[in-house]
Amino acid sequence: MKDLRLLQEQDIHQLIEQKKIAELKDYLIRLNPVDLAELMEELDQPSALLVLRILPRELGVEAFAYMEVDKQKRLASLITDAELKSILEELYFDDMIDLLEEMPAEFVADVLKNAPFERRELINEFLKYPEDSAGSIMTIEYVDLKVDMTVAEAIDHIREAGMTKETVYTCYVTSDFNELVGIVSLRKLVTVDREKTIGQIMDKEIITVGTLDDQEDVVEVFKKYDFLAVPVVDGELHLTGIVTVDDIMEVIEEEATEDFQKMAAIAPTEEEYLDAGVLTLAKNRLPWLLVLMISGTFTAAIIRGYEDVLAQVAILSTFVPMLMDTGGNAGSQSSTLIIRGIAIGEIKLKDIFKVMKKETAIAIICGLILAVVNFFRLVLIENADSSVAFVVSATLVFTVLMAKLIGGALPLAAKKLHADPAIMAGPLLTTIVDVGSLIIYFIFATRFLNLHG
Amino acid sequence: MKDLRLLQEQDIHQLIEQKKIAELKDYLIRLNPVDLAELMEELDQPSALLVLRILPRELGVEAFAYMEVDKQKRLASLITDAELKSILEELYFDDMIDLLEEMPAEFVADVLKNAPFERRELINEFLKYPEDSAGSIMTIEYVDLKVDMTVAEAIDHIREAGMTKETVYTCYVTSDFNELVGIVSLRKLVTVDREKTIGQIMDKEIITVGTLDDQEDVVEVFKKYDFLAVPVVDGELHLTGIVTVDDIMEVIEEEATEDFQKMAAIAPTEEEYLDAGVLTLAKNRLPWLLVLMISGTFTAAIIRGYEDVLAQVAILSTFVPMLMDTGGNAGSQSSTLIIRGIAIGEIKLKDIFKVMKKETAIAIICGLILAVVNFFRLVLIENADSSVAFVVSATLVFTVLMAKLIGGALPLAAKKLHADPAIMAGPLLTTIVDVGSLIIYFIFATRFLNLHG
Repeated sequence: MKDLRLLQEQDIHQLIEQKKIAELKDYLIRLNPVDLAELMEELDQPSALLVLRILPRELGVEAFAYMEVDKQKRLASLITDAELKSILEELYFDDMIDLLEEMPAEFVADVLKNAPFERRELINEFLKYPEDSAGSIMTIEYVDLKVDMTVAEAIDHIREAGMTKETVYTCYVTSDFNELVGIVSLRKLVTVDREKTIGQIMDKEIITVGTLDDQEDVVEVFKKYDFLAVPVVDGELHLTGIVTVDDIMEVIEEEATEDFQKMAAIAPTEEEYLDAGVLTLAKNRLPWLLVLMISGTFTAAIIRGYEDVLAQVAILSTFVPMLMDTGGNAGSQSSTLIIRGIAIGEIKLKDIFKVMKKETAIAIICGLILAVVNFFRLVLIENADSSVAFVVSATLVFTVLMAKLIGGALPLAAKKLHADPAIMAGPLLTTIVDVGSLIIYFIFATRFLNLHG
Repeated sequence: MKDLRLLQEQDIHQLIEQKKIAELKDYLIRLNPVDLAELMEELDQPSALLVLRILPRELGVEAFAYMEVDKQKRLASLITDAELKSILEELYFDDMIDLLEEMPAEFVADVLKNAPFERRELINEFLKYPEDSAGSIMTIEYVDLKVDMTVAEAIDHIREAGMTKETVYTCYVTSDFNELVGIVSLRKLVTVDREKTIGQIMDKEIITVGTLDDQEDVVEVFKKYDFLAVPVVDGELHLTGIVTVDDIMEVIEEEATEDFQKMAAIAPTEEEYLDAGVLTLAKNRLPWLLVLMISGTFTAAIIRGYEDVLAQVAILSTFVPMLMDTGGNAGSQSSTLIIRGIAIGEIKLKDIFKVMKKETAIAIICGLILAVVNFFRLVLIENADSSVAFVVSATLVFTVLMAKLIGGALPLAAKKLHADPAIMAGPLLTTIVDVGSLIIYFIFATRFLNLHG
């Protein structure tokens, strides 16, 4: 892939230092807005500000829109309120909302005061949509057609609206009361007779999402239908905005990242690792570490309860870590697959019996093979007593079975209880499996080695 | 979201049973091809075949294209070769390749024999692109324009090509030697003067990807530039196909799923959990379980080496699981964030020092708080000896520090060595941290409790 920017970054720094503004501008206007955004993110604040002010207004705003919100915010703090407001006015609506959400309340109030009534109402409405709802990720930049327009009129309308984003490729047909009555693609507009009316060519079978729908449900719709955009309607089926595919890609990544965090016992955050402060990162990690450490009380109590057994056959304690780790690994294999299956919509609650059947069969296969390998390793290589090897191997079989059944069931149980499968099943699983494997181990040891616990 | 299908599924089953074909067809043709595909996937084979044969050819092929490949394959095995070939001819190129890759070699050879030369060459070429390369996910359905066409001619060309997919929204301008010289969006074609030539309005700054580029790199391009499609070129910059955003969404999910699997010590597979056989699932999980079990030899050897220490202060062994788990959790918190950061392109090799600095600070904060809480819990609640509580708490601090440093460094080291961060850092981390925490524990115990190891 071509990357013009890289070739010129050094030059740009030099030009800024030497204050060769005209030459700098010549360079900059040849860059892609995305690359300009990256450049401004990397430059120190005064240089970034210089670049923003040198750029032609439209290109500058576009580049600004591509910057990360927290970097926008930092740059915004350097410019005058008047400058910032004129940038805000030219940003796409969804980009503006994202930035406004990060600004101090007084600034937002000020923007609202000076905005035309309708825009003010809209901003207000958007700022109130719940996080992770379709409303919070939608944009209001879309092409609005009427049933009695001709195709030629519609194309004129699109030209006048002057949209530059992909949002133009599906046009939305609304009634006088803003009800969504049809959609028509730009492809269709281009290829049909220009005298036909929109009513004649529009598609009336429309898939919509609700403003309050969870963004994960919106992702499902995009995946199922391969859409570029989907219309968002309120309770009375009025068109309130559209969600576009580029935002959906971000949602898909965000949701996966959140699941990774939850399963690794971290409080989920949208902040990127390198941008987040040490205290924030520590705060996200500490609670689960504390909870899981204190739940270690259970394992300690079990071992204390069987101290006599360990004292009689000291070698038993050397296998505790291996047994616990194998149980943990076997369980997290199962829970990870099920959690991911639930997340991408493949596994549903009704599949619980299929899952349990599969996990049982897999556990028996894996457990038996592990046990046989372990038995011969202990007896032949480590010269262990065969009865001890038998106890360890039998524990392996039952630990793997227990771990896989709990690992498979816990995420589905969490879903049933409307809890988060990733949180419930990830961090908690290890503790439960640890306790279970120790109990199995000591029961088998007591029984088969004729010890008294 | 509206779901017409659900309302009628029962009726459809009834109509099939009662063989009311005309009525059934009336129902079916009102459905969306995506929903038809889902319906055919859910029906038993003979009914699905009936539906496919009832549908008008074009709709049937479209619905078939939306079905999952393995279900296509099963349905394909029921129809005659002639029927199947006529479906293959009408499928989009990328869908056809996906299905062909699943069919027996003789069938593919037969399809190739009967295909026109150029198509045959293309099929062959596509089947040979490495898995997960841009070439393997691209399609050859795109609009090809020439610099000397007028806008009006270009629109006529699009109308004649009769594309129905989103691929039409970016048109590609090629030289007589098939070199990519520009791109022009349908939006631009619609909004500029119809007498202008393509050469006058096309955009010459083109971002491209190479046929052999990894699909993860293609995802980065889409995320960076918010594209709907990106052109794929070979070594001589000839246009060989395009990758569209709907396929990229699938790649994003697949890649995340693979990382989940690797980090949970499972051999990654694209097969869905519910569709995969028990033996396949067991085979994907067993190798890592075996490797990790056998690496338990190390922990066993360490404990055996310090058997005397444990015999002198028996209570020490009760804290082993808690220390190992806390180390494991602390380490996987770090490694998960770093692995994910690498996967989404946020964290680069050059960030290693930033990562190490952050992890050190976070580890000290988390470790000290855990140690203090643990010390008072042991002394006040469990009435433990304060010197034992001190040893356990000091071990916590250093275990967390070690785990977080290894968890942070291992994924980046893997990347540096061109190994997979998720595989190297996920499953291996636990074992390394287990061994490390035991060593720290016994060293501290020997030194601070004046024991002899």
